Amino acid sequence: MRIDGRTYDQIRPVTMTTDYIKHAEGSVLIEVGDTKVICTATVEERVPPFMRNQGRGWVTAEYSMLPRATESRNVRESSRGKVNGRTQEIQRLIGRALRSVVNLEALGERTIWLDCDVIQADGGTRTASITGAYVAMVLAMGGLIEKQQLTKLPVTDYLAATSVGILEEKAHLDLCYAEDSKAKVDMNIVMTGAGKFVEVQGTGEEAPFSMEELQQLLAFGKKGVEELIEAQKEAIGKWSTQIGTQTEGAARHA
Amino acid sequence: MRIDGRTYDQIRPVTMTTDYIKHAEGSVLIEVGDTKVICTATVEERVPPFMRNQGRGWVTAEYSMLPRATESRNVRESSRGKVNGRTQEIQRLIGRALRSVVNLEALGERTIWLDCDVIQADGGTRTASITGAYVAMVLAMGGLIEKQQLTKLPVTDYLAATSVGILEEKAHLDLCYAEDSKAKVDMNIVMTGAGKFVEVQGTGEEAPFSMEELQQLLAFGKKGVEELIEAQKEAIGKWSTQIGTQTEGAARHA
Amino acid sequence: MRIDGRTYDQIRPVTMTTDYIKHAEGSVLIEVGDTKVICTATVEERVPPFMRNQGRGWVTAEYSMLPRATESRNVRESSRGKVNGRTQEIQRLIGRALRSVVNLEALGERTIWLDCDVIQADGGTRTASITGAYVAMVLAMGGLIEKQQLTKLPVTDYLAATSVGILEEKAHLDLCYAEDSKAKVDMNIVMTGAGKFVEVQGTGEEAPFSMEELQQLLAFGKKGVEELIEAQKEAIGKWSTQIGTQTEGAARHA
Amino acid sequence: MRIDGRTYDQIRPVTMTTDYIKHAEGSVLIEVGDTKVICTATVEERVPPFMRNQGRGWVTAEYSMLPRATESRNVRESSRGKVNGRTQEIQRLIGRALRSVVNLEALGERTIWLDCDVIQADGGTRTASITGAYVAMVLAMGGLIEKQQLTKLPVTDYLAATSVGILEEKAHLDLCYAEDSKAKVDMNIVMTGAGKFVEVQGTGEEAPFSMEELQQLLAFGKKGVEELIEAQKEAIGKWSTQIGTQTEGAARHA
Amino acid sequence: MRIDGRTYDQIRPVTMTTDYIKHAEGSVLIEVGDTKVICTATVEERVPPFMRNQGRGWVTAEYSMLPRATESRNVRESSRGKVNGRTQEIQRLIGRALRSVVNLEALGERTIWLDCDVIQADGGTRTASITGAYVAMVLAMGGLIEKQQLTKLPVTDYLAATSVGILEEKAHLDLCYAEDSKAKVDMNIVMTGAGKFVEVQGTGEEAPFSMEELQQLLAFGKKGVEELIEAQKEAIGKWSTQIGTQTEGAARHA
Amino acid sequence: MRIDGRTYDQIRPVTMTTDYIKHAEGSVLIEVGDTKVICTATVEERVPPFMRNQGRGWVTAEYSMLPRATESRNVRESSRGKVNGRTQEIQRLIGRALRSVVNLEALGERTIWLDCDVIQADGGTRTASITGAYVAMVLAMGGLIEKQQLTKLPVTDYLAATSVGILEEKAHLDLCYAEDSKAKVDMNIVMTGAGKFVEVQGTGEEAPFSMEELQQLLAFGKKGVEELIEAQKEAIGKWSTQIGTQTEGAARHA
Repeated sequence: MRIDGRTYDQIRPVTMTTDYIKHAEGSVLIEVGDTKVICTATVEERVPPFMRNQGRGWVTAEYSMLPRATESRNVRESSRGKVNGRTQEIQRLIGRALRSVVNLEALGERTIWLDCDVIQADGGTRTASITGAYVAMVLAMGGLIEKQQLTKLPVTDYLAATSVGILEEKAHLDLCYAEDSKAKVDMNIVMTGAGKFVEVQGTGEEAPFSMEELQQLLAFGKKGVEELIEAQKEAIGKWSTQIGTQTEGAARHA
Repeated sequence: MRIDGRTYDQIRPVTMTTDYIKHAEGSVLIEVGDTKVICTATVEERVPPFMRNQGRGWVTAEYSMLPRATESRNVRESSRGKVNGRTQEIQRLIGRALRSVVNLEALGERTIWLDCDVIQADGGTRTASITGAYVAMVLAMGGLIEKQQLTKLPVTDYLAATSVGILEEKAHLDLCYAEDSKAKVDMNIVMTGAGKFVEVQGTGEEAPFSMEELQQLLAFGKKGVEELIEAQKEAIGKWSTQIGTQTEGAARHA
Repeated sequence: MRIDGRTYDQIRPVTMTTDYIKHAEGSVLIEVGDTKVICTATVEERVPPFMRNQGRGWVTAEYSMLPRATESRNVRESSRGKVNGRTQEIQRLIGRALRSVVNLEALGERTIWLDCDVIQADGGTRTASITGAYVAMVLAMGGLIEKQQLTKLPVTDYLAATSVGILEEKAHLDLCYAEDSKAKVDMNIVMTGAGKFVEVQGTGEEAPFSMEELQQLLAFGKKGVEELIEAQKEAIGKWSTQIGTQTEGAARHA
Repeated sequence: MRIDGRTYDQIRPVTMTTDYIKHAEGSVLIEVGDTKVICTATVEERVPPFMRNQGRGWVTAEYSMLPRATESRNVRESSRGKVNGRTQEIQRLIGRALRSVVNLEALGERTIWLDCDVIQADGGTRTASITGAYVAMVLAMGGLIEKQQLTKLPVTDYLAATSVGILEEKAHLDLCYAEDSKAKVDMNIVMTGAGKFVEVQGTGEEAPFSMEELQQLLAFGKKGVEELIEAQKEAIGKWSTQIGTQTEGAARHA
Repeated sequence: MRIDGRTYDQIRPVTMTTDYIKHAEGSVLIEVGDTKVICTATVEERVPPFMRNQGRGWVTAEYSMLPRATESRNVRESSRGKVNGRTQEIQRLIGRALRSVVNLEALGERTIWLDCDVIQADGGTRTASITGAYVAMVLAMGGLIEKQQLTKLPVTDYLAATSVGILEEKAHLDLCYAEDSKAKVDMNIVMTGAGKFVEVQGTGEEAPFSMEELQQLLAFGKKGVEELIEAQKEAIGKWSTQIGTQTEGAARHA
Repeated sequence: MRIDGRTYDQIRPVTMTTDYIKHAEGSVLIEVGDTKVICTATVEERVPPFMRNQGRGWVTAEYSMLPRATESRNVRESSRGKVNGRTQEIQRLIGRALRSVVNLEALGERTIWLDCDVIQADGGTRTASITGAYVAMVLAMGGLIEKQQLTKLPVTDYLAATSVGILEEKAHLDLCYAEDSKAKVDMNIVMTGAGKFVEVQGTGEEAPFSMEELQQLLAFGKKGVEELIEAQKEAIGKWSTQIGTQTEGAARHA
């Protein structure tokens, strides 16, 4: 039994409150246990300079934590005058993950900015950010359809993420902070609705892991992602009918 | 009648959800109309270098907006690599205002950090931040009493803030964004429970204002602050009995 | 009697040495007591990007102190790598104040940069900067008239600023540093030749102030500004005939 | 057959020139095909502030490229004034990877700085950096033994890294730049001499990958790392006798 | 005949107004033609960390220009967020030059900060800064003697600087801006009262120069420095008796 | 006899390995004793904004050291977030020196970037950088001729640099670090093939120097540069026939 009474392969309760911020084109407050992230999607009718005039859109993400999202207060990155390495790594991960299920040609020459702001942290903030950002992005794209700026969702599949780890020799799904801080192996898994991997990032700084351990972590991750995708379907409501889980050949790069 | 049906001297609905963030020593989600600010108070058991060994505490504030708190997305200050002038001005104002009602000697050599993060903006974010930060601060100080690190609240009076302005030749109390963006005169007023001014900041960049106009703005501000202080009393609950509205002579500097 | 023998409502001696810097389009060395500020006005034949093609001009200000303008040496902001909050606040104040008396449409698509560099500080540097920058600005605009780039001064009124404060329970006009450092209430007042307020910034961090105190500070401020405007009239010489003190209806926004 | 005539599971020629920089405590020029990295190890007799007085050492890494290591010139990070996200991500990866095989307690309160400077890039610079930094680190630790500051190598196992990827539907080992730029799936694998994973970082931004593909990539990676470790053994010479490939239980955290 | 009527080996009129800034321990407004620099000397009773506990003092300099010291306005370095290369080069030069005539052991563990702020520029600002900073430094040291913190001036010789250049095939002494901007060879010479060189910095980016040209430039520089030193003697008044022009053997390093 | 057995007017062994970096248009590894610098030349088909549409090219340089090029590790400038004064001074020197022998009009509207990265430092890194950058530049220009983008080398003369100094009362040519750190006078000399000076930078912070000493240093410098130019001739091979040592009148500015 785990700290909070879950079984090893059980994710924490998930809620997604859509349209949480009135100004954003798409927004959601995602709660995974006590981890709470406000995800907003902003549509900008242009792309970064390096992508201009190619007929393709862009999806990019920013991630931050409020200073007191964590047990002890963090100095703001704006006060430090720079974005630290961990934040940049997470931002790059979120953007890359979401782009993997977006048909950038179909999106057209516009940028979707995904802002993931952690207001309370209890482990798994980067994976909750990916899962929530997906919902905010789809809602913003839905808005473009309603304004007749798009004819259909330029999204090839669902996408969600969770963390897995090894703690006291056992694999655990969806680690809360108390577990995460004691885990010897830590892995983030981003998968599509079709069950394919978009990102696998496992690190065993505290203790290298064997092939068998890796396989169990991957299996746990798959289970968690499938459950998160069910929650996403409800959150995006009517837009879910436009997201066919893609077979490999149907993806944008095929 | 105003845009949202209020009378000229009426403030917007106010709600304060206390203990909003589990990790912070004090926290509140303050909503003033559609303006929403998460205020957290962090207790740090030391003071900045320039204040060490003087037997006095310190109260300081930081303010920020989520990128999509506003109608169009703002670039993060962490991405820009610096805190802009407006933010610094607001941070200095919040800190100065709160210190005016704290007995720093009684607080002891510790710092209260007040983080005001605007998650949705609709005018009056700096005044809502002051009003909310006061509540978060009192709750954090209450926690110190419960942990027997303080014997009583080192707070000499209530403190709240509101904005007033002149728009279409008429004074208005508590401007929402639609009003604020059209106002020719804009004033922020910070007052104590005893009805004294802590800050009066009026600017008529668009049109200088007369002595008579100034007087009416001050009267509206006083009314607004009184109503906000009633909401604060409820939010801080039992701790309100320890805050005697001070006569001038009883203030910390007397 | 005050430290330097003045009465409570008396300003310090003021001198304005115009054309102090040969390269600038307008310049003045303003001395208010021992406070000395070099104010230069630079005309740039374009406006910032956000204002282009609107047919309006812009007025903006920068403020700085030489490291040894003060009793102890200040680290240069260029060495620190950033402009601090106080400086930004002052720069924003100076720019805002001067724009309140400039008809930006009549100025045309050009920018007036006002640089206020304090070479010796003895209290009231920001108000002396405003008072001096006004003179430098008018001289630079006069130069545009002489070069036939403008037909008349795009200035709707005089503008000057002074500080007032409460010290040992008494209101004081135009505080020198020794007074300022002991004042419990500190207020800066920017007014026009017509006697209207452009900025009122009062702060009682050390001790909140009552409505009566506020009224007396406003009256002292008005007296000080009137005397400074007399000095400005002399400094700008022939251009003074083009500045009609405006009734409210005649201001640029009327 | 691949661009450069290799088979799909073949790594590029590897050479390691040790003691390449005379001032460093340990150094190597590692060449993997046309990728060339100078790795130096510096011993500093103290640890970062957050680790003081814990009786443990620290290993950290920095990574950079000369501006013309790549086909087109990169702007120096020192000129930009900040270290970009990709660089920070790589630096964190290198440090984390090396710490996984170091017994920090046995190292004592000192820091090993590993500087990896890419002088010519042709794909796989981060994995070559890890493989080379390991050698530089062992040589520097060997120097501590020779100076009798350590009695034995505080290293629990070998450690090397390589890249694998999917390109034209086929798995490839050790991608050169021409391959890397066309790969749809890209994975970096860091493994120990005992065949355990320290880092697995796979990304399919261009095309998500299946479980079967993942398995093949892992197998290729294992083969590549084993061959690199053989080259490391030669490079470190006599010190290789002190590095017993560890069974899991013998690692530092056991 | 030159632009301003001088002969080729004639310096511009020089004036030095001492005690120009009341707060500084030493100060001078130096005017060399239309070049005007405020030089202040600040005494700090400690040395930088790298020099502590060695029983020696330190002399360091900072240099800046007001934005409108020049014909077109320069962006402030504080706004840019960094000190540019030219400024740093000049600061290093000024500090190095002054240290060459200071007996740092005799100064004791204190730092003299020399701030050179150009308020009006017309060529030769760096050499005027050196010449003026020397005066400010001696006055500040004189103050230490008067306060009995030093018994005699820790200065081994006079020190002044001037510029020389080649323009239209002819050597010129003390170039004004109009000359400097057309010179093909530009050289700054810093010399002592004993006629020795402290710095010789000649650059012929526009046209390399021959040995004969170099000799003539050196001779002109020597003449200019001798005249500047006469002006320094007057400026420092009574302290001049304590500065014996040193023979080489008597310098601090002898 | 010197530390390393050389006579006072003898330079260290010099080797230049051309085409050292495969991606660069021109490159050389220059070794002067134990000082090793990788110099690359990059051709960019545009000029900086301030030079556009003038029909002239530009030559600019950047200089850096690997952290462990020196005996103790230097913090990277990218980590510090700024380029320090010494580096900027050297960069400016290298660029200025090379431009003195380039006919910028003949180069056409393109920029040659010279990157000088010191991988091992043992004194004289800036002069070795100039000497090596010249070779890399000529090779890159040669490449433009081979691609028929230029018809002949836009180079008016050879250019090399060396250091000289006074140590234990004696002039020394080409100081190694052990000598440099004890020298009282330090001078860098940049000369052309025609024996003209491009830069003369001598500093006697530790001890001012006499006219006689200056003359001997200049003579030693001339000898060293002549020998370095011989090595350059071999390194650039066939291109040497296009570099006529120019008489003064033939230089580009004639």
